[in-house]
Amino acid sequence: MRILGIDPGLQTTGFGVLDVQGQRLAYVASGTIRTTGLALGDLPGRLKVLFDGIGEVAQRYQPDAAAVEIVFVNVNPQSTLMLGQARGAAVTALVHAGLPVAEYTALQMKKAVVGHGRAAKAQVQEMVRRLLSLPGLPGTDAADALGLAITHAHAGAAMARVAEVAQLQRRQHALYKGGRSY
Amino acid sequence: MRILGIDPGLQTTGFGVLDVQGQRLAYVASGTIRTTGLALGDLPGRLKVLFDGIGEVAQRYQPDAAAVEIVFVNVNPQSTLMLGQARGAAVTALVHAGLPVAEYTALQMKKAVVGHGRAAKAQVQEMVRRLLSLPGLPGTDAADALGLAITHAHAGAAMARVAEVAQLQRRQHALYKGGRSY
Repeated sequence: MRILGIDPGLQTTGFGVLDVQGQRLAYVASGTIRTTGLALGDLPGRLKVLFDGIGEVAQRYQPDAAAVEIVFVNVNPQSTLMLGQARGAAVTALVHAGLPVAEYTALQMKKAVVGHGRAAKAQVQEMVRRLLSLPGLPGTDAADALGLAITHAHAGAAMARVAEVAQLQRRQHALYKGGRSY
Repeated sequence: MRILGIDPGLQTTGFGVLDVQGQRLAYVASGTIRTTGLALGDLPGRLKVLFDGIGEVAQRYQPDAAAVEIVFVNVNPQSTLMLGQARGAAVTALVHAGLPVAEYTALQMKKAVVGHGRAAKAQVQEMVRRLLSLPGLPGTDAADALGLAITHAHAGAAMARVAEVAQLQRRQHALYKGGRSY
């Protein structure tokens, strides 16, 4: 089973791919999708880069499942709104690629990777490096994404079954009501 | 020119399509995309319904441009986050369909449709009905979406007028400097 972890952000989105081989985790790839080349105000353009970038990663590495960080409200409501839109585009890209999407909080990820929820960014980077036997420290966004993939690997087959049921239910629902009705 | 207006929401997204024929606006279609059949917690499923629904509307009606409401921070930060994610999926669907996306606030829409920014939902519905010569009142979400399309049509007309004036000025300028006078 191959898992794609995504740590969404409007400016930088981290991704990490790993294979679960029995008890072993094998690193496949990681990196970031950046929208920093676009004008700050060009939200549609940024969301397109994010959507297309995740689509390309899914196309290239052909994962079986995705794990995305659940974002929380920020002290700055405007940031919350922006992060929400980025996450909306990211999750949409994953379901559009046909992937079952599991969601974990940063707390759950840190517990799974480091052992406690208060871990600092650097501890996550170091533990991800060790667990995946990487030659060097991954960047913070890539480390968080790999951490989410590790969390999903630990959550195991039970989670995958839940996601399958949800996807089946989704298929059974009509897409939209509309046309000439008003 | 055919315009698709979108009023995004996680539960109900309104859409409205109209044609701009010179000075006239002609109603094409409107309706809602609903995710209410899905479990509240199934965010990936809801975003997929929203993304696919907007994609189908774009496919069926082949608009040339889209207008989306700019959402604002809510008193409830969790609602802000949810609305942000819905809007992210909606804007992503539009750029994925290859449409240029214009963004307007509810205030701009109400000013364009009713004449002032404090208009109630019912006033927007009534003015949209009149402007598009509909036989009955559109629902509130569809009315907002049609209102956004009308706002974009007006903005386009204003830009066209600016272009006309500029062209006239250029012609007059050319006449002044032209060869045939003195």
